[in-house]
Amino acid sequence: MDLKNQILQMAMSAKEACPALSGLNSKQKNQALEQMARALLKQAGTILKENKKDLEQARKAGHPRAFLDRLLLTEKTLKEMAQGLLEVSQLPDPVGEVTGLWLRPNGLQVGRMRIPLGVIGFIYESRPNVTVDAAGLCLKSGNAVILKGGSEAIRSNLVLTKILQDCLIQEGIPPGAIQIIPTTDREATSELLKLEEYIDLVIPRGGEGLIRTVTAQARMPVLKHYKGVCHVFVDQGADLAMANQICLNAKVQRPGVCNAMETLLVHKDIAKSFLPGMVKLFRREGVEIRGCPATLKIIGQGKGIRAAAEEDWYEEYLDLIVAVRIVKNLKEAVAHIHQYGSQHTEAIVTQDYNRAREFLKSVDSSVVLVNASTRFNDGNQLGLGAEIGISTSKLHAFGPMGLNELTTTKFIVFGQGQVRS
Amino acid sequence: MDLKNQILQMAMSAKEACPALSGLNSKQKNQALEQMARALLKQAGTILKENKKDLEQARKAGHPRAFLDRLLLTEKTLKEMAQGLLEVSQLPDPVGEVTGLWLRPNGLQVGRMRIPLGVIGFIYESRPNVTVDAAGLCLKSGNAVILKGGSEAIRSNLVLTKILQDCLIQEGIPPGAIQIIPTTDREATSELLKLEEYIDLVIPRGGEGLIRTVTAQARMPVLKHYKGVCHVFVDQGADLAMANQICLNAKVQRPGVCNAMETLLVHKDIAKSFLPGMVKLFRREGVEIRGCPATLKIIGQGKGIRAAAEEDWYEEYLDLIVAVRIVKNLKEAVAHIHQYGSQHTEAIVTQDYNRAREFLKSVDSSVVLVNASTRFNDGNQLGLGAEIGISTSKLHAFGPMGLNELTTTKFIVFGQGQVRS
Repeated sequence: MDLKNQILQMAMSAKEACPALSGLNSKQKNQALEQMARALLKQAGTILKENKKDLEQARKAGHPRAFLDRLLLTEKTLKEMAQGLLEVSQLPDPVGEVTGLWLRPNGLQVGRMRIPLGVIGFIYESRPNVTVDAAGLCLKSGNAVILKGGSEAIRSNLVLTKILQDCLIQEGIPPGAIQIIPTTDREATSELLKLEEYIDLVIPRGGEGLIRTVTAQARMPVLKHYKGVCHVFVDQGADLAMANQICLNAKVQRPGVCNAMETLLVHKDIAKSFLPGMVKLFRREGVEIRGCPATLKIIGQGKGIRAAAEEDWYEEYLDLIVAVRIVKNLKEAVAHIHQYGSQHTEAIVTQDYNRAREFLKSVDSSVVLVNASTRFNDGNQLGLGAEIGISTSKLHAFGPMGLNELTTTKFIVFGQGQVRS
Repeated sequence: MDLKNQILQMAMSAKEACPALSGLNSKQKNQALEQMARALLKQAGTILKENKKDLEQARKAGHPRAFLDRLLLTEKTLKEMAQGLLEVSQLPDPVGEVTGLWLRPNGLQVGRMRIPLGVIGFIYESRPNVTVDAAGLCLKSGNAVILKGGSEAIRSNLVLTKILQDCLIQEGIPPGAIQIIPTTDREATSELLKLEEYIDLVIPRGGEGLIRTVTAQARMPVLKHYKGVCHVFVDQGADLAMANQICLNAKVQRPGVCNAMETLLVHKDIAKSFLPGMVKLFRREGVEIRGCPATLKIIGQGKGIRAAAEEDWYEEYLDLIVAVRIVKNLKEAVAHIHQYGSQHTEAIVTQDYNRAREFLKSVDSSVVLVNASTRFNDGNQLGLGAEIGISTSKLHAFGPMGLNELTTTKFIVFGQGQVRS
């Protein structure tokens, strides 16, 4: 069978699995998830052996340390993956929930029933733990998933998917529910992205390059975020100790992730009292500063502190670097965010009631916070349970996507013979 | 300025209008809508004059009667358009609504705030009333809209949009909020559909050809429905009088629309008692029958009754024709709907509690009804207020789209200095 046909066959099996999947009750899905968790631990030896082969090849290919770290599976990560599946099994089942049943003047009762989306294509880099996370979330939300992981993780992904599929079969669930593209051929992804008739949604997860490639090729809807250029705005009259803590947390707690702060905006009236102390804290953590002229006037230049260029305001450093700009007022802060931001996550630190409300209202990002760290833009942290990604496009989902975001609703109508006049 | 630049300029003005638009309160938006309603009536003379020119040209071009009917504006249709704007002004404003504010263990308060999508591209055929409907709904939901109507309505659309824009200016709202592409050049649409950076969503409304063309070209998300192949399933033990009424209404009340029934599915145990009477009612209304072999066995063949071909089950007749098939049971009815349907609207007529629930659950269409006509798939009928269209794709909106479906939500978070550990 050629590649094109192979991918088509997979898409067709996924689609065929949908009616059975959407008809499963929570107990059946949870049993399968628990079964999967057990199987991962039981077959740890086999999994780690395949992962070792992937690692050896990746090492030979000269991939950097951080890449190998993401590819590596251990007993500990397998335990975490199993634990993740158990957590998903404990989340409320979104499927079948009816939100609101309202009565029309003619006696019709109208409501919305939550249903799975159908078939999800999930395309990601070489992190085999994502294979299991995504499979678990898609199963719980009643969707079929076709996985395509980074080619360096192919052996790990194949063995993991095989184990998950065996659990499906044991539980009487069609194995088309969880499939992985069994080749490292890039053409496979291109073929998948053409099958709009079978695939209802594609979620790419990884670097901006991967996401742009997927978006350009996909004929079906794509949920994605390109980058997180997140801002904290320290307002005049802010609690300085609170501002210090929030900015430090937002920048250094995990600088390599999308919800870390990249640009700090400071109200001009508080800049002199706030910035010197803040910069000291940053420098102690090894954070490099790129300041606007007014910032440099206050904190000076020198080791680790230099002038920001125009490009800096657009930059997602994902590193211990922060751009700092002093602004005239809240309006200028919001304008800066609109011009340079990525609609991901922005926070204000303020004690002022009206400006807190104004910031919440006028900032057009997926998560807007008052007096809290940008690092809280995360499905678990916001109370959605495990997340499958963060969307910075507004259609369907904006912000962290949990189980609910992997579903849609249909209208259900109860009548007693009503006709339209 | 060349066409490409002209479209880009329009898209940029629309985007620039967004912050002002999303900041408007309901009173300001409603005043503008009321102002527009008055202006339409006041300038009826000018509008009808331009419409007459469009009509004359369309008549010369040999467009059929139904086409000219849709293009025609009269004092009466202008009054209906004005009334439509007033109705939209009276709908609840979705923007700013906060749905749920839940408390996290660390004291963070998390909620979702409803916000406009941004800029909407609206592409439709030569129905100038749609220009006003779409503009009103987009304004009320805080979105900017770029309209592209059918080329035969260009003069009508230009004058209507000019009047609406003048009202915006009088109310201090940026005129970039409602714009129309002022040319009949098809290239204009192609250019618009490339501007994913500026246009957040495209809604095509019209025939399947228009929708397919837009979908193929658009780089941004598209909300659409291709066709409505709607089914009614008459279950064993159904109330025959109710089944007659529902089927008749679903087929003949307005056969040319997407939520009219195209295929009637009948349980084998009720076929003999139900079909002869039903067919008589259909024939009295001039409905042509395309039956499966079992159907023909019961009702015979003859004038207006012939055998259905395989293609008939896929057909959206939009006419006084109905395909009829006898099925073994509910499962076979659902399987037929999955295979041939368009996920638009399906109804069951039944007295059985379990089969009613089973049908609601297992049919994967945007509106599923028990004991009511398919003709109720309509925003107004279901209680959403005026609708901008019906979506049969599942992402973002599935079913009729009202004001809420022209918005999204962002997360808002209230803290007291929380950081992530």
